Amino acid sequence: MNKYKDLKEMCYEANMDIPKRNLAIYTFGNVSSLDKASGIFAIKPSGVPYSDLKPEDMVLVDLDGKKIEGKMNPSSDTMTHAVLYKTWPEIRGIVHTHATYSVAWSQAVRSVPIYGTTHADHLATNIPITEIMSDEMIKGNYEEQTGYQIINAFSKANLNPIEVQMVLVACHGPFTWGKTAEKAVYNAAVLEELCKMAFLTESINSEVKLMKDSLINKHYQRKHGKNAYYGQ
Amino acid sequence: MNKYKDLKEMCYEANMDIPKRNLAIYTFGNVSSLDKASGIFAIKPSGVPYSDLKPEDMVLVDLDGKKIEGKMNPSSDTMTHAVLYKTWPEIRGIVHTHATYSVAWSQAVRSVPIYGTTHADHLATNIPITEIMSDEMIKGNYEEQTGYQIINAFSKANLNPIEVQMVLVACHGPFTWGKTAEKAVYNAAVLEELCKMAFLTESINSEVKLMKDSLINKHYQRKHGKNAYYGQ
Amino acid sequence: MNKYKDLKEMCYEANMDIPKRNLAIYTFGNVSSLDKASGIFAIKPSGVPYSDLKPEDMVLVDLDGKKIEGKMNPSSDTMTHAVLYKTWPEIRGIVHTHATYSVAWSQAVRSVPIYGTTHADHLATNIPITEIMSDEMIKGNYEEQTGYQIINAFSKANLNPIEVQMVLVACHGPFTWGKTAEKAVYNAAVLEELCKMAFLTESINSEVKLMKDSLINKHYQRKHGKNAYYGQ
Amino acid sequence: MNKYKDLKEMCYEANMDIPKRNLAIYTFGNVSSLDKASGIFAIKPSGVPYSDLKPEDMVLVDLDGKKIEGKMNPSSDTMTHAVLYKTWPEIRGIVHTHATYSVAWSQAVRSVPIYGTTHADHLATNIPITEIMSDEMIKGNYEEQTGYQIINAFSKANLNPIEVQMVLVACHGPFTWGKTAEKAVYNAAVLEELCKMAFLTESINSEVKLMKDSLINKHYQRKHGKNAYYGQ
Repeated sequence: MNKYKDLKEMCYEANMDIPKRNLAIYTFGNVSSLDKASGIFAIKPSGVPYSDLKPEDMVLVDLDGKKIEGKMNPSSDTMTHAVLYKTWPEIRGIVHTHATYSVAWSQAVRSVPIYGTTHADHLATNIPITEIMSDEMIKGNYEEQTGYQIINAFSKANLNPIEVQMVLVACHGPFTWGKTAEKAVYNAAVLEELCKMAFLTESINSEVKLMKDSLINKHYQRKHGKNAYYGQ
Repeated sequence: MNKYKDLKEMCYEANMDIPKRNLAIYTFGNVSSLDKASGIFAIKPSGVPYSDLKPEDMVLVDLDGKKIEGKMNPSSDTMTHAVLYKTWPEIRGIVHTHATYSVAWSQAVRSVPIYGTTHADHLATNIPITEIMSDEMIKGNYEEQTGYQIINAFSKANLNPIEVQMVLVACHGPFTWGKTAEKAVYNAAVLEELCKMAFLTESINSEVKLMKDSLINKHYQRKHGKNAYYGQ
Repeated sequence: MNKYKDLKEMCYEANMDIPKRNLAIYTFGNVSSLDKASGIFAIKPSGVPYSDLKPEDMVLVDLDGKKIEGKMNPSSDTMTHAVLYKTWPEIRGIVHTHATYSVAWSQAVRSVPIYGTTHADHLATNIPITEIMSDEMIKGNYEEQTGYQIINAFSKANLNPIEVQMVLVACHGPFTWGKTAEKAVYNAAVLEELCKMAFLTESINSEVKLMKDSLINKHYQRKHGKNAYYGQ
Repeated sequence: MNKYKDLKEMCYEANMDIPKRNLAIYTFGNVSSLDKASGIFAIKPSGVPYSDLKPEDMVLVDLDGKKIEGKMNPSSDTMTHAVLYKTWPEIRGIVHTHATYSVAWSQAVRSVPIYGTTHADHLATNIPITEIMSDEMIKGNYEEQTGYQIINAFSKANLNPIEVQMVLVACHGPFTWGKTAEKAVYNAAVLEELCKMAFLTESINSEVKLMKDSLINKHYQRKHGKNAYYGQ
């Protein structure tokens, strides 16, 4: 399966960004990278610490989560990735971490309010959070259902996964994605920073208000609109 | 005592993980590693900074805390380790640290509520805290009594030390353990992260509720149950 | 344009201090450095991560923000820099970051109260914050208007930009400046530290009062007054 | 003055521990080291960043703060050091930093309550804080008066500077000392950790109580009492 060498390399590099960006300790977290043409994605093997990871360890699976190649088992979160790839055809990379501030908001079961331009540079809404999963979903194929829970949160709030590339799963932690695995990790690092900033903002001013719409739109549009010109 | 060379090496490596994982400064903290067959454990010498530590410095003691080999004195917490090894025959490594967030919860004299899956991936209950020691216990063999205080907390709450591999000693700090010294350090690092996450969670939502039982059980069982499949 | 080689080198070095001082991640933030004689300043190119930055990448622009030299586009915040350089003739370097605690105060829309001597060693007033921009300003040339918003805040409060070398832009983040680009980065790092200290101070004592005037003046004057002697 | 080469080297090493232990940025902070026999101490020069510091830069002064040797000026806090050395004959090293959590408690104008054994391992009382200086003292020889303010706080509370080797100066920051400059830096790092732990403890439990006396005494005595045996 030499044709997937680049895919595995890309997936490996993105996984190694997780400890480099302080987004997880030990084996926590996982990144996948999709080859759209073949419908196959590479993903971190289960239970391997980042310090031991090698490019050839990446596991190849299809969009039903079935292992295609790999000595080890794919991440136990593989089915969540598969559901997101199948439902949202534009995305090519997915990240799950247990980054501290992102998990704290997930555990607090709150969406992250949009308080400033750092946030609006990346998305124009509060960072969505799923509902707490029903006992039925938990007892089913849990990881697959986690994917559906994310999809449901986006449908319900009428959000576009290309405009909002991040979500918090209630009582669990963050998932982020993007047009590449590298971009998905970038989003995970940005999300962690936004979560820390919002926590501090509320601590400094318990009556803080959301940023005004005109400023949200200005920042979001100058980076993502038709006439985007923003790059810092 | 060349037959304990590996034990001392293993103990040394686990001790060096303490500063590497930012779990203590200077000489704070200690790790021991038990050789079950002989009933002898290696432990950090007293008062030596991690930067000066060498494998041959590890002190060998028996389960009554009596020094068997070593130029230096064993950690002043040696008797706490000895009590835990004697009472809980399945454990082979013990760690004590003064890690910041773990100490903060210990000083706050609160058990750490289970708010999310990062916690439930490791244990299915709140993280237990001992009662504050009585004056009698403090005036006795203090370090030995600290061990009994931990045992008492587990007995009272009917906890299994293989299912719950961590405890906070009130007004003091964390002890963790495991089937190896390396695993005990892993638990110390996870505990510190859980303590930080729980602190932030309550700061973000002062009315946060415990995670629901069905989700706790799902996460704990997928990692530790009979049909465990979880590895991230 | 070999005559600007030193200017670009100086600008590059100051930009590289941003990640070194943990003041921004990825491409966030930007530093410029002015050559007063020619009215030309060097500034970070738009959208380039610090890890990829090279001295020759610095873009040269004039005081109207027009590009004079450079393969890439100048930072999208270039017009804010230009307005400040034109209005305040004594300054030679400007920094904009999205440093965590500085952004948190900006999002909280609060000026940072002067609570201690670390603050008074650098400025003798609260750290000013602009008003939230009007919709009109936002819809105009936004980055230029951001510059005017800063100028307005200083005029209204009768502040001298040589005495107060930092400001928070409401809902956005910090701008700092100085007689060199290097000094402007120093001010950005000091501001971040002051923001963290003030946040913690209020958390530790919710009824804390401002430092008394006599102590403010003593500290400010011993470092910046006619008979300054302070250097730690 | 070759006879002071060791003193300067010792002072230099202790100063370099300040950035290594994350106790200050840029030029903030200073360490001195006393040669008791001659009544001369070495101290950090004024205004030099740690990254540029060399052993030969250390300035020699006598106990009246008069420069004996050195190309640069001694730290502007020199007179505070001199007063402490003259009043407390047992101490040989002094440190002043602007470490974040220590400054936060100083700015909050609160002594740090004794909540746990990490604290009691080092001192058996709350960490003292001076009163806010009177206008008269501020207008006098400010740095000398800062020394007297510290002495007064100790006299008033009947504290022994060998038992309590740290103080917070209100609205300013920490001073620590010890039998060597190295030990004084150790105390500065411990103080910063205690300040962080106490802040978190109160955040986690707003009704937390002081640790009981019997436990304070046990921990303090096992490390500092006649029959001390503690070393971790």
